[in-house]
Amino acid sequence: MKDVKMLPGERIDMLYADSVRIIQSSEVFSFSLDAVLLAHFANPKKRGKGLTVDLGAGNGAVSLFMAHKIIGKIIGVEIQPRLADMAQRSVDMNELNEKIQIINTDMREVFDEIKAGTVDTVVSNPPYFTVEETTKKNLNEHYAIARHEIKADLELVTQTANRLLKSGGHFYMVHRPDRLFEILAALQAVNLAPKKIQFIYPKLGMEANVVLIDAIKDGQLTGARILPPIITHHADNSYTDEVLAIYEGRSDHD
Amino acid sequence: MKDVKMLPGERIDMLYADSVRIIQSSEVFSFSLDAVLLAHFANPKKRGKGLTVDLGAGNGAVSLFMAHKIIGKIIGVEIQPRLADMAQRSVDMNELNEKIQIINTDMREVFDEIKAGTVDTVVSNPPYFTVEETTKKNLNEHYAIARHEIKADLELVTQTANRLLKSGGHFYMVHRPDRLFEILAALQAVNLAPKKIQFIYPKLGMEANVVLIDAIKDGQLTGARILPPIITHHADNSYTDEVLAIYEGRSDHD
Repeated sequence: MKDVKMLPGERIDMLYADSVRIIQSSEVFSFSLDAVLLAHFANPKKRGKGLTVDLGAGNGAVSLFMAHKIIGKIIGVEIQPRLADMAQRSVDMNELNEKIQIINTDMREVFDEIKAGTVDTVVSNPPYFTVEETTKKNLNEHYAIARHEIKADLELVTQTANRLLKSGGHFYMVHRPDRLFEILAALQAVNLAPKKIQFIYPKLGMEANVVLIDAIKDGQLTGARILPPIITHHADNSYTDEVLAIYEGRSDHD
Repeated sequence: MKDVKMLPGERIDMLYADSVRIIQSSEVFSFSLDAVLLAHFANPKKRGKGLTVDLGAGNGAVSLFMAHKIIGKIIGVEIQPRLADMAQRSVDMNELNEKIQIINTDMREVFDEIKAGTVDTVVSNPPYFTVEETTKKNLNEHYAIARHEIKADLELVTQTANRLLKSGGHFYMVHRPDRLFEILAALQAVNLAPKKIQFIYPKLGMEANVVLIDAIKDGQLTGARILPPIITHHADNSYTDEVLAIYEGRSDHD
């Protein structure tokens, strides 16, 4: 691990039995379990040979957490300079500069940097809430932009993913189940065919609160698979073994 | 219970602590857990006041299993004379003739009997398999028609449900998750907005094998709910308590 400059209010969190470190800030941005679940769910073909793009990279969590299972390159695209800077310093700290590049740009302009139709895998943990949903929007601007569709909405994310991907490339996204039908409609509108869906339930007996989606560019609508449920907590609110295994990197596909 | 004529190879099965009896035949047709799950999942508004239609009623399982929670009428529509006759005799046996009517007709012609736009609730446990899927199609004709989209496919079922329903009426369907995206596309094509989905997993750690869908005519695509997972079996293949409770009628919504 390399030493990097830390800004006021920042801390370092560790994941995967301390093998990955990430700069966090409760005032600016910190990743959630959703980023960990997405990084675990995304399973790039050919061990991630070629190019993977992380749309709305935040502080780089998904890119950092996927690095160990990718032999190609990852580009993290983040519109907020403050978050892109955190992500870049985490990449430096983990000495992953050969593998992960952070680009501070609006995803509308990502095609200045990445040619359309050249990407093997796109991953995204986008803003979940519509601009109308005001709950918690009284947080600071960094959180507001990361959580609400202020700079990028579902349509922009799916359109950008579709345009970046090669035919047959995979788009992995984490989102809220209450927007599932909008998500599926947005995917189908751009020839992204959902193939696998996994629902995350906070406890047995409770409704799903997270959904993971794997869609293929130019795929067919047939043969959907609903992967085994992930239950995140026991009745006593402690994490289940399954989630602990994911956090600790003991539960990879390959 | 009233005595009714039984045909060769038929037997009587009981459900809900023996309060409902149904004529079954392993040679002709027998209901599956899916029918029980659909009858449990469907939760007609105003306790089923008005009219409920069961599209593709088979031997009447869903209609019979829903009768106790419906104060209005149920019409079961079944194209196969042999199955419609079994359903009618089960209705007679349970003395439910005041509540359940069985009509032996093609659902294309159901509008000769039921006026479009007058139905409060439609339920359906339709054929799951496309005509191309030949697995198990070497069963007899009764099973083939009930299981394969020979007489009615997904589009016909959703179109018929939509045309029968009042605006705001609910369509409850059970199907296979591998056809989920086709199902959602078919619903959206006719202004049926999915609202609640529940996935049934055979065991923890396994992919879903059944999906239950609740869609509203002329509803919006927003606000999807993914209900708590139902796990049907323990690791030792015995039924879970949740499924036993549904079978025994100890687990109603209301």
